[in-house]
Amino acid sequence: MSELKPIVLYQHASGPNPWKVVMILEELGLPYEEIFMDQSSVKQSPYTSLNPNGRVPTIQDPNTGITLWESGAIVEYLVDTYDKEKKLSFDAFPEKYHAKQFLAFQISGQGPYYGQYAFFKFYHPEKIESAIQRYEEQTLRVISVLDKCLEGKDYLVGGKCSYADISFISWELGAQGMITEFGEKTKQFTNYSAWLHRLLARPAIARTLERKAAMNAHK
Amino acid sequence: MSELKPIVLYQHASGPNPWKVVMILEELGLPYEEIFMDQSSVKQSPYTSLNPNGRVPTIQDPNTGITLWESGAIVEYLVDTYDKEKKLSFDAFPEKYHAKQFLAFQISGQGPYYGQYAFFKFYHPEKIESAIQRYEEQTLRVISVLDKCLEGKDYLVGGKCSYADISFISWELGAQGMITEFGEKTKQFTNYSAWLHRLLARPAIARTLERKAAMNAHK
Repeated sequence: MSELKPIVLYQHASGPNPWKVVMILEELGLPYEEIFMDQSSVKQSPYTSLNPNGRVPTIQDPNTGITLWESGAIVEYLVDTYDKEKKLSFDAFPEKYHAKQFLAFQISGQGPYYGQYAFFKFYHPEKIESAIQRYEEQTLRVISVLDKCLEGKDYLVGGKCSYADISFISWELGAQGMITEFGEKTKQFTNYSAWLHRLLARPAIARTLERKAAMNAHK
Repeated sequence: MSELKPIVLYQHASGPNPWKVVMILEELGLPYEEIFMDQSSVKQSPYTSLNPNGRVPTIQDPNTGITLWESGAIVEYLVDTYDKEKKLSFDAFPEKYHAKQFLAFQISGQGPYYGQYAFFKFYHPEKIESAIQRYEEQTLRVISVLDKCLEGKDYLVGGKCSYADISFISWELGAQGMITEFGEKTKQFTNYSAWLHRLLARPAIARTLERKAAMNAHK
């Protein structure tokens, strides 16, 4: 795909959602360039003229002219537009919609709850134990649902690794870093643990996470 | 579409997300039948064998054989499969992906935050003012983003009412019911208010909301 111009990704060094998009770009071998934003610049003009929600990621794709925000929509756009060989996605029915189902679960059921856990654990000025506990329980509940969905399966949909699986990685790693005694609390979720190891062993994922770690180590 | 068999919708009398699906079914004139669940039965077998996440909605479509959960994925499935005239959706680029962007914003940025507001305001055993305040602020922030996106426009995408707009209705009505002095706090968001009135005036939406209100009044 050397004829493609780089896709511009508005990104954040440590935020989970833009790195989800990087993983898809790397898996598909697409050219991209990153513009790193900080927490305050995403909430101000000129960035908010691209993304009125004031969050990352946003992409601008000079190959098609689109500006697009929301990581879930960006992932769908990238696989629809560039995954012609269906390496990470599906034409077949019902797999095509089951992949969308798991992406929707990731963006509505995983990301926001794990994000609230992070907020109450690390950022809220008050220490509210009942709120921290609520979101730890919700995080472990989502992990239990993934474990159940993976019973007898290597991947969530259609017997292959797809964008549905990859989209979960960033926040699952976030959960490992937030929950004390994570291993002990999740040891019964063996389908889940095997799946996450399988995903992390993929070269495009490993390379993305190594670069993210190096970038945050230098801060 | 009289040749179609009814689509089975697992639903809840007062929950916002299944009614979002009803609005799409009504707008498209699709036959459906509802199975009403209560809060405990959605978390137990046999329902969890359909939807391991233990939430509504789930659909079973006998016309295609699919079982699908997550309201966002169901909405995409319904318009892809049945909105051949593109009454509520788009074939055109970039509108097709901008509609997905707003659906993703609805399911990841609106629903979860408004839902946390409801939780801390009405259901959490402790009264935590700082958490209630956080989610009220986030709710009003989402409304301000919608207002900005609607500047100079009647609808979010492509100059017509689409599934992207309709998907926001349920939780926006939820916000009106939760936030004290809602009118005062949102009076500057005139694009937003006009848009919501425009949506509520649609016959399919009005009829859905009347039925929902009647159902909850009888409880």
